[in-house]
Amino acid sequence: MKKQLSIKDIAKLSGVSTATVSRVLNDNGRFSKETREKVLSVVKEFGYSTNSVAKTLREQKSHTIGMIVPDISNEFFSSLITQIESYFFDKGISTIICNTNKDAEKEKAYLKSLDAKLVDGLICISGQEEIDETQLSRDIPIVCIDRQPKVSNNIAIVGSDHVDGGYKATKYLIDKDCKRILLLTKDNNTTSSNDRIDGYKKAIKEAHLQLDPDLVIRASSKKISKFETAQKSIEEVLSRDLEFDGIFATNDWLAYGAIQTLKKNQISVPEEVKVVGFDNDSISKYTTPSITTIHQEVNCIAEKAADILYQLMSKPGMQINEHYINVPTRLIERETT
Amino acid sequence: MKKQLSIKDIAKLSGVSTATVSRVLNDNGRFSKETREKVLSVVKEFGYSTNSVAKTLREQKSHTIGMIVPDISNEFFSSLITQIESYFFDKGISTIICNTNKDAEKEKAYLKSLDAKLVDGLICISGQEEIDETQLSRDIPIVCIDRQPKVSNNIAIVGSDHVDGGYKATKYLIDKDCKRILLLTKDNNTTSSNDRIDGYKKAIKEAHLQLDPDLVIRASSKKISKFETAQKSIEEVLSRDLEFDGIFATNDWLAYGAIQTLKKNQISVPEEVKVVGFDNDSISKYTTPSITTIHQEVNCIAEKAADILYQLMSKPGMQINEHYINVPTRLIERETT
Repeated sequence: MKKQLSIKDIAKLSGVSTATVSRVLNDNGRFSKETREKVLSVVKEFGYSTNSVAKTLREQKSHTIGMIVPDISNEFFSSLITQIESYFFDKGISTIICNTNKDAEKEKAYLKSLDAKLVDGLICISGQEEIDETQLSRDIPIVCIDRQPKVSNNIAIVGSDHVDGGYKATKYLIDKDCKRILLLTKDNNTTSSNDRIDGYKKAIKEAHLQLDPDLVIRASSKKISKFETAQKSIEEVLSRDLEFDGIFATNDWLAYGAIQTLKKNQISVPEEVKVVGFDNDSISKYTTPSITTIHQEVNCIAEKAADILYQLMSKPGMQINEHYINVPTRLIERETT
Repeated sequence: MKKQLSIKDIAKLSGVSTATVSRVLNDNGRFSKETREKVLSVVKEFGYSTNSVAKTLREQKSHTIGMIVPDISNEFFSSLITQIESYFFDKGISTIICNTNKDAEKEKAYLKSLDAKLVDGLICISGQEEIDETQLSRDIPIVCIDRQPKVSNNIAIVGSDHVDGGYKATKYLIDKDCKRILLLTKDNNTTSSNDRIDGYKKAIKEAHLQLDPDLVIRASSKKISKFETAQKSIEEVLSRDLEFDGIFATNDWLAYGAIQTLKKNQISVPEEVKVVGFDNDSISKYTTPSITTIHQEVNCIAEKAADILYQLMSKPGMQINEHYINVPTRLIERETT
C-alpha cells in the first residue's frame, strides 16, 4: 500500500515549513510560485493522505473577515468600515467588503461567497431583518451593526439607540416650541430608521401633541438621491398647504434637501421651521445654516463590534452574554433650530 | 496498492455531482453541511488521488473579482464600485472590495489576500503608482482605473482624461476673464490629481498668463476633511493678501470649502472670485451657489473597465491592444462662475 504522507513529510520533501505546505494546499496566499510548484510536485509524486486535507479544510483559518454592507456610499457606513478594517488589519486580519445595494438576493449570494472564501468572522451592517444562515456551511461568528436579525442565536448586535435618538431629536424640537413636527423618512426603511420613527412617536405622545399621520412622510426614493427625495416631498407638502413648524428628518441629506427647498420657497430656517437631522454627516457640519443633528458614536460602535467579533473568533464556542449593545447618541445643536 | 479515486468516483460514492465534489474539496461554497460531510467521509474512507486536488487547485475559478480601493468614502469611487459590482453580479460573479486607505502596506497585504482568495480578476482604483505584482502568485487579469502603474505589462488602464479635465476647468475660468487663478489641491496626490494640475498649467501657459508658483496650493490634509483642508488654505491665503480672481479646486469638496470660506470673509462668488471644482459630486449639485465642475463619466468608465476585465477573464492569454482608455470629461456650468 502506498505510503500516506503527512503534511510534515511533504514539508520535509519540499524543503519548506509545514505552515507553507498547508497554505499551498489551501491555496491560502503568502507563498511564491516556485514554492507552490515545489509542494505540488511532491504531492503529485508521492501522493498525500487526504485525511489531512479534510482535517486542514476543517481547521483552516483564512485570517480574513467579511463585511456585508447595504450601501457603501453612506458616510456613516463607510466610517464604520474604515475603522473596523483598521482594527483587524492591526491584528493581521484582512477585511473584505461586499456591497449589497440593499438587495436581499445579493446579500444571500454574498453570504455564500464569503463563506466559500473561508472568512473567520462576519460583520453585517444594516440591511434586511433576517440573515439567511442557511447560506453558511460553517458556524461563522457574526456581529450585526444597526440591524436586528430575526434569528439571533449566538449573534451580537451593536448599534446606536435609535429609538432614543429619534426621541431626543423630537423632544428637542418640542422644547423649542414646535407644535406640528413633520417626520421625513424614506419608504425603503431599515430597522434603525423605523426605530427613529418610534422615538419620534414616543416624544409626540409624551408631550400630549397630536400624532397626525399626515405629518409622517415616507418618501419614495426610487432612483433619486436623498436630497431629491426630500426636495420632492417638501414641494408636495407645501403644495397642499400642510402646516408644520418643525422637521425631524431621519438622516442629514434628507434634512439638507428639506432646508434648501424651504429656502427656495421663502420659508426661513430656523425662524419659521426648525430642522433636526440624523447621523452628523459632513453635510450637516459644513452647510449654511449648519444642521442640528443626532450624532452616532461611530468610533465606539466600530470598536465594540470589532472587539466582540475578535473575541468570538479567538474563542470558538464562546457564548455571548450580552446580545444587544446599545450605544447612546447625542444631539448636536447647530443653526437650524 | 490502494485504489486512487477520481472526482467522478467520489461523486458516485457520495451521490452528488462532480461539480459539488470539486466545490467541497476546494471549500468553494454552495453546498450544505450534510453534502460536505458526505463527500469528506467518502474521501476519508477511500482516499483520493491528490493529483486531482492539485489539478483542481490549478484550474479552479472562484467566480469572484477583487477591487482595491484607496478610499471608499469618496463618492466617485463608491459609484464606480457599485456599478462594477452590478455588472459582474449579473454575470454570476461576486465582487469583494478591499479599502486600503491610501496605505501602500495595506495595498500589498490586500493584493496577497485577494490572490489567496483565488479571485479571477482584479480592479485597482487609484492609489499608488506601482502595483506590487510580486504579491501575486498567479497571473491574474488586472484593470486599473485612474491609476497608471509603472509596470503595465498586460494591464489595461481606464480613466478620465484628467489633463484635459484640468485644462477645461482652467480654460473656462480664463475665458470668464480670470487672470490670477488659484490651484487648490491636497498634498497627498494621486496620479489623477497631478494630471489635473498639468492641465491647469497647460491652460495658463497657452493663455500667456503668469504661472505664479504662489498660486499653486498643495494643502496639507492630515487627519482633517477636504472641506477643512480648503478652509484652512483659503484663510491662510487671504491672511497674506494673495490676489486671485479664480479658483480651480481638484475636487468638489475642496471647492465647497473654499467657497464657504470666501463667503465668510465677505468675498462674493462668482462676482469677485469664480470657482470650478472636479468630479460632479452631490455637494456641487445641491449647494447654493451650485458649483461649476468637471463631470467624470463614471458610468462609461465603470462599464469599460468591467468589460475589459471580463474579456481578460474569459479568454486566458488574451493580449491587450489598447492599454490606455481615456474617457473624455465635460464641464458643467453652474452658479460659481
